[in-house]
Amino acid sequence: VRFHYLSGPDARIDVDDRGLAYGDGLFETMAIRGGTIRRLDLHLQRLERGGDRLRLPLPERRELAIRIDAEIAGISEGLLKLVITRGPGPRGYAPPAAPEPVVILTATPQLPPRQLELRAVMLAQRLGENEKMAGIKHLCRLEQVLAQLELAQYDADEGILLSTSGHIVGGTSRNLFAVYGQSIVTPRVSRAGIAGVMRRCVLEQCERLGIAAEEADLAPGDLVAADELFMTNALVGIQSVAQLDGRVYGSRARATQLRAAIEAIEHV
Amino acid sequence: VRFHYLSGPDARIDVDDRGLAYGDGLFETMAIRGGTIRRLDLHLQRLERGGDRLRLPLPERRELAIRIDAEIAGISEGLLKLVITRGPGPRGYAPPAAPEPVVILTATPQLPPRQLELRAVMLAQRLGENEKMAGIKHLCRLEQVLAQLELAQYDADEGILLSTSGHIVGGTSRNLFAVYGQSIVTPRVSRAGIAGVMRRCVLEQCERLGIAAEEADLAPGDLVAADELFMTNALVGIQSVAQLDGRVYGSRARATQLRAAIEAIEHV
Repeated sequence: VRFHYLSGPDARIDVDDRGLAYGDGLFETMAIRGGTIRRLDLHLQRLERGGDRLRLPLPERRELAIRIDAEIAGISEGLLKLVITRGPGPRGYAPPAAPEPVVILTATPQLPPRQLELRAVMLAQRLGENEKMAGIKHLCRLEQVLAQLELAQYDADEGILLSTSGHIVGGTSRNLFAVYGQSIVTPRVSRAGIAGVMRRCVLEQCERLGIAAEEADLAPGDLVAADELFMTNALVGIQSVAQLDGRVYGSRARATQLRAAIEAIEHV
Repeated sequence: VRFHYLSGPDARIDVDDRGLAYGDGLFETMAIRGGTIRRLDLHLQRLERGGDRLRLPLPERRELAIRIDAEIAGISEGLLKLVITRGPGPRGYAPPAAPEPVVILTATPQLPPRQLELRAVMLAQRLGENEKMAGIKHLCRLEQVLAQLELAQYDADEGILLSTSGHIVGGTSRNLFAVYGQSIVTPRVSRAGIAGVMRRCVLEQCERLGIAAEEADLAPGDLVAADELFMTNALVGIQSVAQLDGRVYGSRARATQLRAAIEAIEHV
């Protein structure tokens, strides 16, 4: 397979690229800290799951790592966006037999501001369910764009979405965790949503720390009943939900504990 | 609103365009016959419904018509693809307050071959449901790409898809009609699927010809029970389903009648 690499914000892509035409591709947005990509392995693992699901060939990990290193050279703190599309193709949804994927790397020497608390609202829009597309980070993100348009009506930081079958999925760009006494629950991402890198990291830390954590179906009432809510995202880490639709959540205990545990690992 | 126009297959687009990043845009693929766009009004009406739904500003119809005329000049038969994206934007799903949409026009002097019959299969993949995204022709089409990957396993021309709630939606790139005696039914497109231009044209012809036609929910068993099935697409027109998963459909009566009625109008 022949891959085409593009680099930097001024790069341009053919208008017949299937990433533009059909959202036929994947992406990752990764934090750069201390001059290296945080949790690169987890990002690449998710990328590979996406490649398997879409039958989209990916570069070897070693090749990708070399390209990434070159792109982030000289950047101490920031973010790196990686997009991989199935490349140009003839008209029609059927993928070409021998695709030439396009890999786009864009580094930005700036991270989003650190914010430890969020005000959240439940959104009315529901997310469609598709087992083949759930969990992976593909380029078809109009649902999230529409959710942001809905969220803009409120004085809030994040919106929480249900799937069409009425299960909590998470935020527009964050996974959600609910704390009940000593245990933690996060929505499954097998029918909708994204399997976040920080979500996985939190689940791993729970296991290491002996905190009971499970993936399950959650209904809106389950959030009202929670002792504590927090959300996760690879760039901003763990953020406590201070309020949801006006209900105030006082506890920050698990969020604080897990944030400290993850930061301790990062600084090793 | 400032629009940026790109033209021709060699045009290139910024990698931070939201059409590539998030599928944040719309498209139309239109038939050129006799040097003019067939059913341009219906295409532009659907585009405008999409613009309303996504709150994506569109150029004035008159401006778009002038650009389209310039793009198809000298082409007697072919197709024109129009893509409109929300243009470049900063990172994040939230649309910019003042987007500068990008309009891409690409004409090809060739139409798909005329084929009056299709062999179809039912596909296993189900389409997610989202009322905000159903009906319009947005750029998030990975479900159709995955459906084509599934279809490639079969010796068939088209695959028929169910929504997650078990209703027939249509083909990967065609709407579906089922004939029962004197009446015709086509699946609703209010929760999944695209409101096809040729679909609308067929419904209008049914009304003109006094044929009972309605949009309704259809289950797989309803297709087995049908006297005749046909599919529609703006580029290839009306095509009879000769067989579906091996069941042979003998009747071509309604498909033939409606095709003749539509061709008669086109040649006025």
